[in-house]
Amino acid sequence: MAAPDSAPHGAAHDGATRGPVRVAVLGCGVVGTQVVRLLTQQRDDLAARVGAPLEIVGVAVRDVTAPRAGVDPALLTTDAEALVARADLVIEVIGGLEPARSLILRAIAAGASVVTANKALLAADGPTLYAAAEAAGVDLYFEAAVAGAIPLVRPVRESLAGDRILRVLGIVNGTTNYVLDQMATEGLDLSTAVAQAQQLGFAEADPTADVEGFDAAAKAAILASLAFHTRVPLELVHREGIAAITADDVAWAARTGHVVKLLAIAERTDEGVSARVHPALVPASHPLAGVHGAFNAVFVEAEAAGELMFYGRGAGGAPTASAVLGDVVSAARHRVHGGLGPVESTYADLPVLPASAALTRYQVRLDVADRPGVLAQVSAVLAEHGVSIEAVRQAPQLVAADPAADREAGPGAAASGAPASLAHLIITTHAATDAALSATVAAIAELDSVTRVVSVLRVEGA
Amino acid sequence: MAAPDSAPHGAAHDGATRGPVRVAVLGCGVVGTQVVRLLTQQRDDLAARVGAPLEIVGVAVRDVTAPRAGVDPALLTTDAEALVARADLVIEVIGGLEPARSLILRAIAAGASVVTANKALLAADGPTLYAAAEAAGVDLYFEAAVAGAIPLVRPVRESLAGDRILRVLGIVNGTTNYVLDQMATEGLDLSTAVAQAQQLGFAEADPTADVEGFDAAAKAAILASLAFHTRVPLELVHREGIAAITADDVAWAARTGHVVKLLAIAERTDEGVSARVHPALVPASHPLAGVHGAFNAVFVEAEAAGELMFYGRGAGGAPTASAVLGDVVSAARHRVHGGLGPVESTYADLPVLPASAALTRYQVRLDVADRPGVLAQVSAVLAEHGVSIEAVRQAPQLVAADPAADREAGPGAAASGAPASLAHLIITTHAATDAALSATVAAIAELDSVTRVVSVLRVEGA
Repeated sequence: MAAPDSAPHGAAHDGATRGPVRVAVLGCGVVGTQVVRLLTQQRDDLAARVGAPLEIVGVAVRDVTAPRAGVDPALLTTDAEALVARADLVIEVIGGLEPARSLILRAIAAGASVVTANKALLAADGPTLYAAAEAAGVDLYFEAAVAGAIPLVRPVRESLAGDRILRVLGIVNGTTNYVLDQMATEGLDLSTAVAQAQQLGFAEADPTADVEGFDAAAKAAILASLAFHTRVPLELVHREGIAAITADDVAWAARTGHVVKLLAIAERTDEGVSARVHPALVPASHPLAGVHGAFNAVFVEAEAAGELMFYGRGAGGAPTASAVLGDVVSAARHRVHGGLGPVESTYADLPVLPASAALTRYQVRLDVADRPGVLAQVSAVLAEHGVSIEAVRQAPQLVAADPAADREAGPGAAASGAPASLAHLIITTHAATDAALSATVAAIAELDSVTRVVSVLRVEGA
Repeated sequence: MAAPDSAPHGAAHDGATRGPVRVAVLGCGVVGTQVVRLLTQQRDDLAARVGAPLEIVGVAVRDVTAPRAGVDPALLTTDAEALVARADLVIEVIGGLEPARSLILRAIAAGASVVTANKALLAADGPTLYAAAEAAGVDLYFEAAVAGAIPLVRPVRESLAGDRILRVLGIVNGTTNYVLDQMATEGLDLSTAVAQAQQLGFAEADPTADVEGFDAAAKAAILASLAFHTRVPLELVHREGIAAITADDVAWAARTGHVVKLLAIAERTDEGVSARVHPALVPASHPLAGVHGAFNAVFVEAEAAGELMFYGRGAGGAPTASAVLGDVVSAARHRVHGGLGPVESTYADLPVLPASAALTRYQVRLDVADRPGVLAQVSAVLAEHGVSIEAVRQAPQLVAADPAADREAGPGAAASGAPASLAHLIITTHAATDAALSATVAAIAELDSVTRVVSVLRVEGA
């Protein structure tokens, strides 16, 4: 790329020059290392696909002395700002809000295109980045920010641009999927499964962003915004993590033909759009139930296309780098041949509804007195609140009387200790609002015959 | 689009004009009708996404008097050539080689961008179309040509452009998948299942293109060419259809933990690339085994991304129209804002190997004399030919002596009629070449103790 550093937006797109495209990499952790490796090892292939060589002009890090396999130490620099000023294309894989945001804005202002994997930043402040890129006439690509290696952003933004997306539903956080999968297949409790995920590198030392659903919520906000051509701010994404999911929940899910999954859901109805992240019971026969380990899978339902599914590795250095490099090729081709990728599309500007407006089915588990008339009482409360029952199941022998014991030992161990006077009631409702369900459950908890509301979980994908 | 009909390639891409993009639709069958419907019903959305209205200037048909639901009769014309000359963007959904090819070339020569769903034409003469489009500086998009609504062409060409694709393996023909699925789930024989597919509109009156694998082979050629940046001509795609698959094959597949699927496979090895279409036994636990009815699913394995899967509707009017419209938005955006989609990429120019070089596992079923020493004889022949055995299973009671009876009645019905002196031998080999396996099977057939080679099927996806 022969354009000078100070070139305004137009200059890079004339397409006349075929000099190298100068690439700066910001961050050299798990993803950055793989990005540099692929840029180096596949240099010739990338040059052929772009139409010009990609030249790494530097890799910005905090500490140049830390060892990084396969990365030329001469490329390392701690001066990210100076590096950005020398690049035509900036790859941001630092993560987090700052300094990522400032560096991206600086790169855009200097006329560079940007490829980022930063879901947190996009969800928190995407419109600022989009607006800056559009004003500067440069590309802003972010395939790697959602579902790692899985092509999802491009299909949603481009392949389905002629269709009307109705619903996006998927597993977009590999860490929690690994944890829930281990709970289901190995019978672990949450904390043990999280500790195991940390040992294997699937979870951070501080697992909050994953376990509490922050990571998935950021991705849900991004996907909902793209799918519905509407800005869906992160604050309006309903978020529940998996911290409250017990071994008991997972065991009962299996017993009722379900699997517990943390889902990100974006929906469009006649009233508007909504996005939410929460654990849910998924029928064992549903394809999402078969997504194991740290894999991701996303269903997209569109009016004309029908149901589509995308499956693959949602995290990890090499898979994420694959998504980054795909974007790099697109952005670099535009530098060389002209053109510009998709810009922010918010024309639809649909109302963003609170998740409480969403209709979902629920499974409610109760410990109740094992005597005639209890089901009639409970059913009456549901009816009063307009919540209709799909199925009820009673399981007297599988219940622990002591909630704490239940939580720790799971239902299997509880069989011997359960007093004969208690029964376990599993109620599956038809679709109801969160508000109706909450009011119903509160009223049920007040009943004399109800000892305890053990759990309330949504049912999705039926 | 205000550019005159005779505008050379550059003119359409200056991006200054925001007049309507004039769209011509060639063909108004199942897909064309849905394309026109979506262009009409989603007019406002499409205009917002493109940045300019899409104006249908005409729909070319053979017979303007045939009724077409939802299509304004005033748009219909039999003069496709004149229509093409009035368009900025031509959607070709006629199918077949002519007049589709001539009309597309005429459109390109007149400076129009082209979106086509025509797999047969692309596989047979893609390079001519690509070259014409590149010379004219217009777009040639064809997402709908492979796997219907499933975004696959764009992910392979763009999202994975920074990665190295090693293998593509999938179900890309919905008709044969429906037929095989019905054989497996309902126990139908092939001709009955095909007749049923015809009644339901899943198969053409002449089902040859689907049943004999021509349709899948065209898609395999297209996918292999895109995945490996190498022209893979249709003639070099090994093609076997499902015509020889019997109810017995399907029943034995189930008995050995498999499902029969028609697969399209494109592979890259150190020696080169290859593409093939054939029925294969897929383990029941493999995700492709769970692809039912007329659905399609494609696995893509790339060096950095790992394994990805794409799933959805591979055919049908609305799903195919969704893919067409996605391409239309991309091409129209380029007309309005400048830029150009990906062009043919053949720089890798890898050797295209015959499918006989591919290594696959096989399952060979034999009727043999039920006496000691037969397995030793058969094993010796395999060893002589360097084909290694993974597993052998013997099933004396499930075999029909009469091949014709076997073929018609299936193994279940054969139990009572089988002479006690016959046994059924099911041999699964380790990976072997087609040539080695063919020579082995020929030699086995010569053995006195072998009554009949019942079937030879590849095993994939293990």
